[in-house]
Amino acid sequence: MKFNKKLENISTYEAGKPIELVVREFGIEPKDIVKLASNENPYGCSINVQHAVNEILPHMAMYPDDSMMKLKNGLIKRFDIAEENVIIGSGSDQIIEFLMHAKADENSKILINSVTFAMYEIYAKHVGAEIIRTSSQEHDLDEFYQLYKEQNPDIIFLCTPNNPTGDAIDTKEIMEFIARIDSETLVVVDGAYMEYAQFKDASKKVTPKELIERFENVIYLGTFSKAYGLGGMRVGYGISHADIIKELYKLRPPFNITTLSLEAASVALEDAEFVNECIALNFEEMKRYEEFAKEKKIDIIESYTNFVTLCFDGNRNSTEISDALLRRGMIVRNLSGYGMNAIRVTVGTKEQNDRFFELISELL
Amino acid sequence: MKFNKKLENISTYEAGKPIELVVREFGIEPKDIVKLASNENPYGCSINVQHAVNEILPHMAMYPDDSMMKLKNGLIKRFDIAEENVIIGSGSDQIIEFLMHAKADENSKILINSVTFAMYEIYAKHVGAEIIRTSSQEHDLDEFYQLYKEQNPDIIFLCTPNNPTGDAIDTKEIMEFIARIDSETLVVVDGAYMEYAQFKDASKKVTPKELIERFENVIYLGTFSKAYGLGGMRVGYGISHADIIKELYKLRPPFNITTLSLEAASVALEDAEFVNECIALNFEEMKRYEEFAKEKKIDIIESYTNFVTLCFDGNRNSTEISDALLRRGMIVRNLSGYGMNAIRVTVGTKEQNDRFFELISELL
Repeated sequence: MKFNKKLENISTYEAGKPIELVVREFGIEPKDIVKLASNENPYGCSINVQHAVNEILPHMAMYPDDSMMKLKNGLIKRFDIAEENVIIGSGSDQIIEFLMHAKADENSKILINSVTFAMYEIYAKHVGAEIIRTSSQEHDLDEFYQLYKEQNPDIIFLCTPNNPTGDAIDTKEIMEFIARIDSETLVVVDGAYMEYAQFKDASKKVTPKELIERFENVIYLGTFSKAYGLGGMRVGYGISHADIIKELYKLRPPFNITTLSLEAASVALEDAEFVNECIALNFEEMKRYEEFAKEKKIDIIESYTNFVTLCFDGNRNSTEISDALLRRGMIVRNLSGYGMNAIRVTVGTKEQNDRFFELISELL
Repeated sequence: MKFNKKLENISTYEAGKPIELVVREFGIEPKDIVKLASNENPYGCSINVQHAVNEILPHMAMYPDDSMMKLKNGLIKRFDIAEENVIIGSGSDQIIEFLMHAKADENSKILINSVTFAMYEIYAKHVGAEIIRTSSQEHDLDEFYQLYKEQNPDIIFLCTPNNPTGDAIDTKEIMEFIARIDSETLVVVDGAYMEYAQFKDASKKVTPKELIERFENVIYLGTFSKAYGLGGMRVGYGISHADIIKELYKLRPPFNITTLSLEAASVALEDAEFVNECIALNFEEMKRYEEFAKEKKIDIIESYTNFVTLCFDGNRNSTEISDALLRRGMIVRNLSGYGMNAIRVTVGTKEQNDRFFELISELL
């Protein structure tokens, strides 16, 4: 059977290996596996969330409140925005998918950073759009602007802090950049790890309200998968001008968020104490990675997230190292597929990090 | 900002009103609201499912096992198929979305029944495809064949039992029909309510294995939202030839099913006793609707599902009746949007049905 031609170019996203897979492939007991590959919150999720979800388990049979009013009200309050400015997706991934289908097609160009979140390219291929990449590894907004002038892209993605490198752009730079972009080009500011960045350095904090008050062609993306500890529940959001949100809504499948996920995210949003504690612990533990890298003479990119990127020199190979770690039950993300001789490691709990240092030391 | 032209023609799906909305709109207390509008399982979900999900609440922080091995193994066993024959979606809706993006575009035609599941048309519009409808209200496969010959559609949807009318096609007829369709045309057999139909009448039972062994151009769709009592968890599946599944996989976003939903569906699949009890109770209670309709001289379509469709004559108006019911806290589905002077009512528990008969009797 014949299928649409654009499918020929689609590759599937390589997710961090789940623990289940390592159990199956290497026969390692689940208790002996440490997964530091997908930047989940190593402290889990708020106990308040667990209690709230437990309360509504009998509601699993009922379709979700498709207006998502409870969660929307939480986001409206948190970001001081109006209802017309927000859309909720099955992870912020789904908002990226909506954006691509709303704004791009096989004649479109999408401008992204050389190394950045893989889903931008994957969803671009879904609509047959062309990907334009910068050459610099960190977001260089001068280069972005030059490519914008040359290529006239339909969508520009700024991922800050950037995944999988952890660096973040100064907010001032972002605002100045967007001011130079014409109003027909959509600028996406993906703040999946923003809670971490703004904790570490106020100059990296992007405020959605400011963005959308100043610009009509910008959408901010956020997620519950990282700092809020709900990676398994698939909830993200987009904040933008009402005209953009309205178009994205046309592409939203009904009931795109489960009944339990809506409740989990709503309650998670209220437990700021849990989130702040996790973030504080994250940066405490991150210091150990910085010290470890210094000691072992490994380059580490300064991180504004809950992960660190360790860049190896020519004497070491990230694929060999990550494979060897995997066989020992330690799952990290090899960045060779991103053209980097590096691994990305989620900053885990103290015990998880102890184990990482122990295992990788055997390999260095 | 300009968006893709195809968005101009997209209307959003009108979901059954959730209880939350009625609470907000009419100020009726949740305990006084009965929702018989979305064909959820009125007996909820299996207690085994609730226990299993409760056990893994701390896992909400972890991304799902994206290989979905546990649930896939359950489906493989249940349907006696291979892993390469199955794909899992966020509701069977999402499989419809994949199919549309894989097989159709703005030059395509999609053949559907005159009155059928609304999402076929909505997803067709997402890709700009043209919808061709039969004139007959029940699936008339002779008319389907005639339109197929005239219009050469890319996809044909057979919804059996059909939503929102409840009637089902004989399996023999389906097999004979597909045998006459060329191998480049994809035939979708949507069996969202199949568990109910096969309980009531073996001649309506479509077996996915038989379908895909005999035809390379067919996909069977199933869901956990109805008989399995997991409407809120968004899990459905497609069973087809490996070549089709492989293409659909290219369009599947990673982590499209939540961690808790995967567990819920896996455990639900094992509790056949719960499902069978619910279905038996459903048809027991359905008899009361049939008797009520006879007594009140209302036409009722013979149903192979967990809902009934009551068709009014010219003296009664389905919009007025459903609005009046809504103001009294009884949510049913008005089918005026489908061109029918009818309401669709989920067969509820004994108490819910008592309440329906009481309230509608006041209006007739």
